[in-house]
Amino acid sequence: MNQGKFITLEGGEGAGKSTQLHALAAALRARGLEVVETREPGGSEGAEAIRALLLTGGADRWSARAEALLFAAARADHIEKTIRPALSRGAWVLSDRFLDSSRAYQGQGDLSDADILTLHRIGSDGFLPDRTLLLTLPEEEATGRARARDGDAEDRIGGRANDFHRAVADAFGRFAREESSRVQAIDASGPAEVVTERLLAAIEDLLP
Amino acid sequence: MNQGKFITLEGGEGAGKSTQLHALAAALRARGLEVVETREPGGSEGAEAIRALLLTGGADRWSARAEALLFAAARADHIEKTIRPALSRGAWVLSDRFLDSSRAYQGQGDLSDADILTLHRIGSDGFLPDRTLLLTLPEEEATGRARARDGDAEDRIGGRANDFHRAVADAFGRFAREESSRVQAIDASGPAEVVTERLLAAIEDLLP
Ligand SMILES: Nc1ncnc2c1ncn2[C@@H]1O[C@H](COP(=O)(O)OP(=O)(O)OP(=O)(O)O)[C@@H](O)[C@H]1O
Ligand SMILES: Nc1ncnc2c1ncn2[C@@H]1O[C@H](COP(=O)(O)OP(=O)(O)OP(=O)(O)O)[C@@H](O)[C@H]1O
Ligand SMILES: [Mg+2]
Ligand SMILES: [Mg+2]
Repeated sequence: MNQGKFITLEGGEGAGKSTQLHALAAALRARGLEVVETREPGGSEGAEAIRALLLTGGADRWSARAEALLFAAARADHIEKTIRPALSRGAWVLSDRFLDSSRAYQGQGDLSDADILTLHRIGSDGFLPDRTLLLTLPEEEATGRARARDGDAEDRIGGRANDFHRAVADAFGRFAREESSRVQAIDASGPAEVVTERLLAAIEDLLP
Repeated sequence: MNQGKFITLEGGEGAGKSTQLHALAAALRARGLEVVETREPGGSEGAEAIRALLLTGGADRWSARAEALLFAAARADHIEKTIRPALSRGAWVLSDRFLDSSRAYQGQGDLSDADILTLHRIGSDGFLPDRTLLLTLPEEEATGRARARDGDAEDRIGGRANDFHRAVADAFGRFAREESSRVQAIDASGPAEVVTERLLAAIEDLLP
């Protein structure tokens, strides 16, 4: 049995990650692959319990450092209990956010990118996706999509200022430039079906 | 206002940490000091929520790595929300377990002592106690005390084999040898009042 492939979808809020995850999973299933759809934070029993801690409470419930440690703990559990077992039995695993979101969101203030990567080394041996698809969308379009979906509801992570979201987008862009064989930026504008075609093209070389 | 002192009590199960923490706090209060009694994992709202995750579920709920990350997250919150503010207003803080317990318990298998210390650097800038009092007791005596207290009840951390507890005791002993100005081994046998006198003698130089 061949090992499956591990694909992550990244990008800011409203870029279309969740929408595209389902569409991509359906396209891969149509090619006969077993596909596991998962998400972060969460994706395993323990990681979902940590997710509940991360997403509840006020904006200052957790410091950036405590938050980064909790994300790393959740990711270690997610990898060990969900991702690795699925890949071992030959399934493909698609995850809605993963390590690069921690780097982009928590690696802004107190914490360096090197620190976030160190936590991932200690927690998960530095385990990386076979490919990361970064959905890019002009800021106004992303905000518009998220607003149309959520109205004014916001959680601890989502409810932040514009310059924060711009710094996140810049960080994602840097990963795509600096780790270009793993992280591919994909234009997420236009109809969903067109975006799905772009994503499929970007993993074509990994397909059996 | 002078900064208070941060004192941690360490040692295996049943050594008398909790008993001595209260006695030591009372002795320090009798000298006119404000004393905060706290414990790990826990000691702040967020850290107590993480404690609940750590102490429930089966023995294999968390891998050693996920567990170490959760302890480090709880400790970061405990330091930021409880310990540093108390020290800043001049209070003494006594904690029932702290970093050395993570090093002794989680630093056994997969994880190195250096990894545990790295998590503490990233989470809490490597913040250390002014003094660590290591309560040492022959294995049979400690087991006897804990049994007399608990009957056969065990939690996720306590319910482990003898050679595990021996490795923990060895690790604590190593810290006392290698960091002798911070970590002082104290004979915890004999009547509680006698042990308390030994502890007071070991922090005499820190008293105002
Ligand atoms: N190609 C598209 N064109 C127009 N609207 C879209 C497109 N893709 C997704 N949407 C809509 O935009 C909104 C955001 O999409 P989605 O929830 O998939 O984004 P997301 O990246 O998962 O966001 P979040 O990070 O907040 O979870 C949804 O209402 C979705 O239906
Ligand atoms: N000096 C002593 N002599 C005899 N019994 C003692 C002494 N000190 C504590 N005990 C008893 O031993 C038991 C264990 O003590 P204690 O709970 O303080 O230990 P501990 O180190 O906090 O254990 P744990 O790690 O399990 O929390 C308790 O029942 C306590 O009353
Ligand atoms: Mg989504
Ligand atoms: Mg105790």
